[in-house]
Amino acid sequence: MSLRTWPRLVTLEGGEGAGKSTVLAALRGAFEAAGIQAVYTREPGGTPLAEQIRGLMLDTQHEPATDETELLLAFAARAQHVRATVLPALQRGAWVVSDRFTDASYAYQGAGRGGDAAFIAELERRVVGIRPALTLLLDVPVDVGLARMRGRGAADRIESERNEFFERVRQGYRDRAAAEPARFEVIDAAQPAEAVAAQAVARLRALIAATAEGAA
Amino acid sequence: MSLRTWPRLVTLEGGEGAGKSTVLAALRGAFEAAGIQAVYTREPGGTPLAEQIRGLMLDTQHEPATDETELLLAFAARAQHVRATVLPALQRGAWVVSDRFTDASYAYQGAGRGGDAAFIAELERRVVGIRPALTLLLDVPVDVGLARMRGRGAADRIESERNEFFERVRQGYRDRAAAEPARFEVIDAAQPAEAVAAQAVARLRALIAATAEGAA
Repeated sequence: MSLRTWPRLVTLEGGEGAGKSTVLAALRGAFEAAGIQAVYTREPGGTPLAEQIRGLMLDTQHEPATDETELLLAFAARAQHVRATVLPALQRGAWVVSDRFTDASYAYQGAGRGGDAAFIAELERRVVGIRPALTLLLDVPVDVGLARMRGRGAADRIESERNEFFERVRQGYRDRAAAEPARFEVIDAAQPAEAVAAQAVARLRALIAATAEGAA
Repeated sequence: MSLRTWPRLVTLEGGEGAGKSTVLAALRGAFEAAGIQAVYTREPGGTPLAEQIRGLMLDTQHEPATDETELLLAFAARAQHVRATVLPALQRGAWVVSDRFTDASYAYQGAGRGGDAAFIAELERRVVGIRPALTLLLDVPVDVGLARMRGRGAADRIESERNEFFERVRQGYRDRAAAEPARFEVIDAAQPAEAVAAQAVARLRALIAATAEGAA
């Protein structure tokens, strides 16, 4: 299975407290204004089984997952999400917006936890097989993001990690973006929320326009 | 991570209705008679988190797992089991008996579902890293095993598969055994239970004796 880029697959990535919810709402508004019904989904999750796998990854009721276990759970959930939710929508011509996708494993399980990027790349080829045409990366300094997040209440297991972990995750995302500048739109998410959302929407509109031209 | 064979790791494999429970009880009796306290565990499972992963693999409350999802869940559970239960016991010098281990993924997710054996081998090297010194394979014709199993009540998802699937699983196990005759003891599990247990115990006793000589 080789990687195929789908022109109507858009992913949103970013660390804790980057403001993904606000941007998702703005993307939804932009699709509706354009008269497009998109499918909105998230990772880990996006199907009933994948949401249960997410629960195992995030809850703190059992012993902690080892790094290898966490990586394989993330890709198990993603394999399910791709086949049960994402690909069926893309194949019928729908747009799909996923709150996190494979880049998150390179950032969290790879850069964050020290997982081997070559192994992650093989998992991506073997069980994911698809790439988004556009990835919006909300980039925010770790202390800014964590301060926003801690205003929200109880932290799950991954959110309880130390700051150095989140620094590695942020750098992992930035390295991904630097390696694929055509796919990534890096947005300075320390800006006011309206400015962040405006940049995301402008880039999405450009993609919608380009896709319509390509189809015409 | 390369594969290391642990002389005190024993695994028990076999299809549905092969009589693993009876053999496990006999192995336990043999260890007790030898004054050895062994650790008894199972897959998928063997830790609280891995048992929850097992639950996701076997229950029928959500949409079916895709083949890729099932394979990665099996190895996620195994990665956890190895690090949290099996290796700590082996490293302190204990014997470990696991009711199923990596061979089950080659048989079920590989031969049974058509998963790529090379990918399974890479998962084994990357996230398991250990092999048993002895694998007892209870081999029984599919119709005999299924008839025994159906006497037991409700079937879980995997047990609801059709006979051709179980034929492929059986052949997958037999191929594994043929490729590694020194590690495998193939036992004709269509024999009476006492004969099956006696053959398993005899082979275990030989391993215990050889291990004691090696340590002396």
